[in-house]
Amino acid sequence: MARIDETAPSFGPEFAAAFRELVLWRRDVRRFRTDPLSETLVARLIELACHAPSVGNCQPWRFVLVDEPARRDAVRASFHRANRTALEGYDGEARALYARLKLEGLEAAPVHLAVFADETTERGAGLGRQTMPETLRYSVVGAVQTLWLAARAEGIGVGWISILEPDAVTEALDVPSDWTLVAYLCLGWPVEEHLDPELERAGWQARAAAAAAADFTLRR
Amino acid sequence: MARIDETAPSFGPEFAAAFRELVLWRRDVRRFRTDPLSETLVARLIELACHAPSVGNCQPWRFVLVDEPARRDAVRASFHRANRTALEGYDGEARALYARLKLEGLEAAPVHLAVFADETTERGAGLGRQTMPETLRYSVVGAVQTLWLAARAEGIGVGWISILEPDAVTEALDVPSDWTLVAYLCLGWPVEEHLDPELERAGWQARAAAAAAADFTLRR
Repeated sequence: MARIDETAPSFGPEFAAAFRELVLWRRDVRRFRTDPLSETLVARLIELACHAPSVGNCQPWRFVLVDEPARRDAVRASFHRANRTALEGYDGEARALYARLKLEGLEAAPVHLAVFADETTERGAGLGRQTMPETLRYSVVGAVQTLWLAARAEGIGVGWISILEPDAVTEALDVPSDWTLVAYLCLGWPVEEHLDPELERAGWQARAAAAAAADFTLRR
Repeated sequence: MARIDETAPSFGPEFAAAFRELVLWRRDVRRFRTDPLSETLVARLIELACHAPSVGNCQPWRFVLVDEPARRDAVRASFHRANRTALEGYDGEARALYARLKLEGLEAAPVHLAVFADETTERGAGLGRQTMPETLRYSVVGAVQTLWLAARAEGIGVGWISILEPDAVTEALDVPSDWTLVAYLCLGWPVEEHLDPELERAGWQARAAAAAAADFTLRR
């Protein structure tokens, strides 16, 4: 039986246009001001992220606010090790360019937020993830993208650092052993505002052409 | 050197409030009207999804519009097999409840959109995914969540079906062998509008309490 909630919002073309701008102006931020973000604001972002879709409604996201200097040091050390190894994988011009890239804002960002998937949650009773168990972790990614857009709407920058050793980070944060690290985020007020991705600006990898949607789409 | 693009938008509290509504009213839709979506509209959603963040800016998302009846049949058959097996994993009341759940809208939805990750893309030259290669697939999930919110902003419903055998679906769609199925989506005009998740309404799994953000957050 169909059910229509009369209070359901209709967003309209003006909102859709503003949402498009939000998506276009979201950036992976690596240059942060060091002044703090209010706890209320960060809690609000996390709360909204918890409304992301999740497989079987299992809500597997677990957020860890990393405050202790020793833990942040361990994360930064992990980045530096992983980044050195990554650099060694490139030769010639690519190597020189890679060495110049700014790939994280771990030093300046006032907020470090690690996001995990709780692999053993009983919520959802396994629904929807028998044949594609990875959808549990995918649900956490949906929460991250929701938080990212919500942050940008408030003018807050987010950077996702994946050049990390997940085991080392998980150990440094002392979380339950059945949590999987999905994302390590830096949050703070951005020093810059720009439309072009950082890696495009640096000459590493441009966005695909304007016809991207067509380039990326097949019909079957 | 900091760079401020003077044309950068400032979204303001009114937009942030509307964005919050968008996130709250996004639903996993399983009840669709059968009337078509315009191709322009679908292309616009995909185009915006291509502005999601991606590791090393590698843009690994590949979209497949599934039109051919034989291919749709193969996908539905895969759902029915996987769903029968899933049902057999529950006992007693849970089994009876599971059997009554409506878990997909494959029959009515005018648009089927499979979303893959191209595991061998050269874009990004591997940057950011040496230690966490799963971030390639995570990038595709960010695109899916972006598309989902963009669709909801236009009043279009999206449902993500994960009760599928990924190998069978990949084979049925005849895509390159190094593409990984990340999501199979149904799109169409929703029959219903409601704020509570389908699985909450059906008594399967409620959302966590209003204090969810705190419940889900640790400090370290």
